[in-house]
Amino acid sequence: MMQTEPTSRFMRACQRYPVDATPIWLMRQAGRYMQEYRDLRSRYSMLDLITTPELAAQVTMQPINAFDLDAAIIFADILPPLMGMGLQLDFVAGKGPVIGNPISERRHVDQLRTPSARETLSPTLEAIQIVANELKPKGIPLIGFAGAPFTLACYAIEGGGSKDYAKAKAFMYREPVAWGRLMEKLVAVQADYLIQQAQSGAQALQVFDSWAGLALGKQAYQRYVAPYNKILFEKISSTRLPIIHFSTGASAYLEDVADSGGDVISVDFRIPLRDAWDKIGSQRAIQGNLDPMTLLAPWENLKGYIDEVLQQADNRVGHIFNLGQGIHRTTPVENVKRMVDYVHEQTRR
Amino acid sequence: MMQTEPTSRFMRACQRYPVDATPIWLMRQAGRYMQEYRDLRSRYSMLDLITTPELAAQVTMQPINAFDLDAAIIFADILPPLMGMGLQLDFVAGKGPVIGNPISERRHVDQLRTPSARETLSPTLEAIQIVANELKPKGIPLIGFAGAPFTLACYAIEGGGSKDYAKAKAFMYREPVAWGRLMEKLVAVQADYLIQQAQSGAQALQVFDSWAGLALGKQAYQRYVAPYNKILFEKISSTRLPIIHFSTGASAYLEDVADSGGDVISVDFRIPLRDAWDKIGSQRAIQGNLDPMTLLAPWENLKGYIDEVLQQADNRVGHIFNLGQGIHRTTPVENVKRMVDYVHEQTRR
Repeated sequence: MMQTEPTSRFMRACQRYPVDATPIWLMRQAGRYMQEYRDLRSRYSMLDLITTPELAAQVTMQPINAFDLDAAIIFADILPPLMGMGLQLDFVAGKGPVIGNPISERRHVDQLRTPSARETLSPTLEAIQIVANELKPKGIPLIGFAGAPFTLACYAIEGGGSKDYAKAKAFMYREPVAWGRLMEKLVAVQADYLIQQAQSGAQALQVFDSWAGLALGKQAYQRYVAPYNKILFEKISSTRLPIIHFSTGASAYLEDVADSGGDVISVDFRIPLRDAWDKIGSQRAIQGNLDPMTLLAPWENLKGYIDEVLQQADNRVGHIFNLGQGIHRTTPVENVKRMVDYVHEQTRR
Repeated sequence: MMQTEPTSRFMRACQRYPVDATPIWLMRQAGRYMQEYRDLRSRYSMLDLITTPELAAQVTMQPINAFDLDAAIIFADILPPLMGMGLQLDFVAGKGPVIGNPISERRHVDQLRTPSARETLSPTLEAIQIVANELKPKGIPLIGFAGAPFTLACYAIEGGGSKDYAKAKAFMYREPVAWGRLMEKLVAVQADYLIQQAQSGAQALQVFDSWAGLALGKQAYQRYVAPYNKILFEKISSTRLPIIHFSTGASAYLEDVADSGGDVISVDFRIPLRDAWDKIGSQRAIQGNLDPMTLLAPWENLKGYIDEVLQQADNRVGHIFNLGQGIHRTTPVENVKRMVDYVHEQTRR
């Protein structure tokens, strides 16, 4: 993590410096709940938006222009790195991501390529350059991100979304050696991708391990996930940027999640922030953790739920206000605007 | 809970009496992984099987006849009580349960009926009578069950399965008063249903709260779920039967789950048994918690995962071996047979 004292609220909170007010940004802050986004999506496919740097940059800026957010996150998806590895990815309307040739045998793992991000993911790297330049005069940092190896391995084996991760877990329990090779290849690709994002101008990096905690118990996490996450976090620490480690459903072993890496641990809405801090130790910053579905309630109710998160955080250094998972597509824009301003007002030091 | 010392392993473990070997049964032990079940399902619909007492009894006995299990669980589904309340339930092939008229407004809650189980759920009560008589000479207890109010409320509002419980949680956060009325009606219906199951011959009762832990954080659970579960558990304690409280994804506040009721806490695969016992206190029995997907691995691997659960349980009184969630439909029958025998052999006192 960088050593010079930064000026922006978000970067300061990542490194647990005192702030003038608690920084706030929202997972999936560029998305369907915004009319500007829906307008673009009516003209372009998901893959178009991601693979056209100017469009990805434009989408990234939509919530920055609409709300007083303290950080931007590059508009991208966690799955495109799988395409470069040889998996056929498509986004199917109403169904989400679908992989045409999912992994089901050891030899499929051996066949996976590990190309550099410069070769296969340059549109996102270019989008980062565009947005970083645009944000510089505003003093707003840009977050780059990538999926953690477990979550990508799940998609690669399931061939898409899953309720019970049955195929991925069966492969993991049945073929622990091939599983290890798959995870190592994913670590190599994702580490390079994140390092390239840093070199393109990202000022912080978030690793999304959206599925490990929901899919696995503590012992399986320690055996099949943590060792690979550790290598990934170790590799990307060379960027000297603050690293955010996002997990969900991992309340039973949040200490193991924190132990595998990250300067900031981004927690889901299931665990109160004080309990989370107890588990991960006071030397880490925490990001979270309002339940995004509270944003579907009227402001009077929503305000009470925001207050609960702020009471839990108690203005401790190193709190970044965020949601416990991505914002829902039916969220009223007005509630987002009021929440962002309310968090700043209530936490002004 | 009954006071006389029972003889069967399962009933003894529920009440934390010493046992000659750890009892084992499996959630969804009657199901698609068995050829006998698939044969019946090819001739009858899901609703046919549930609503024809002789068929439900036959399915219930299939795993009892095939494996050395220590308890039977009546073959039924958690959703039929919603039909008696006025919701149109259907099981759609490849899609699962679908409700034609889901709850979306306060007045829908007011319109819900609360008929007695005798009126609307008599096929399951009759199936319990048939199976209880058949099991008596074998000395194997029969478990009755019902869904907890939160999980049923989710189905009633979502209109079926859900990934993010968005509609149900939005209703809960937006309409807390109507939410309370809905939960109260569900408590009334489910308490009566469980009491009737006891009177029909069930010897233990399991309450399935499959979704609350996954859907909610600690504070929301305490506010919108726990008070209603407490009333439900209080009401069914009149049966003097052991009550099993099953939850998933609730590792962050398992103590609150235990606090709302149950003699046996059935935990998912996410939390190691020792940690779970620390959270709920040694005065409760624990059921669980092998990851069902380990049953998809070869026996040599599976054996190691079973050993881990047994090491965690360490032959403590009050351990009932089970899975952390329902058995998967692709599970090899041979693995089930070996697991049941292995658990008995390894825990023989």
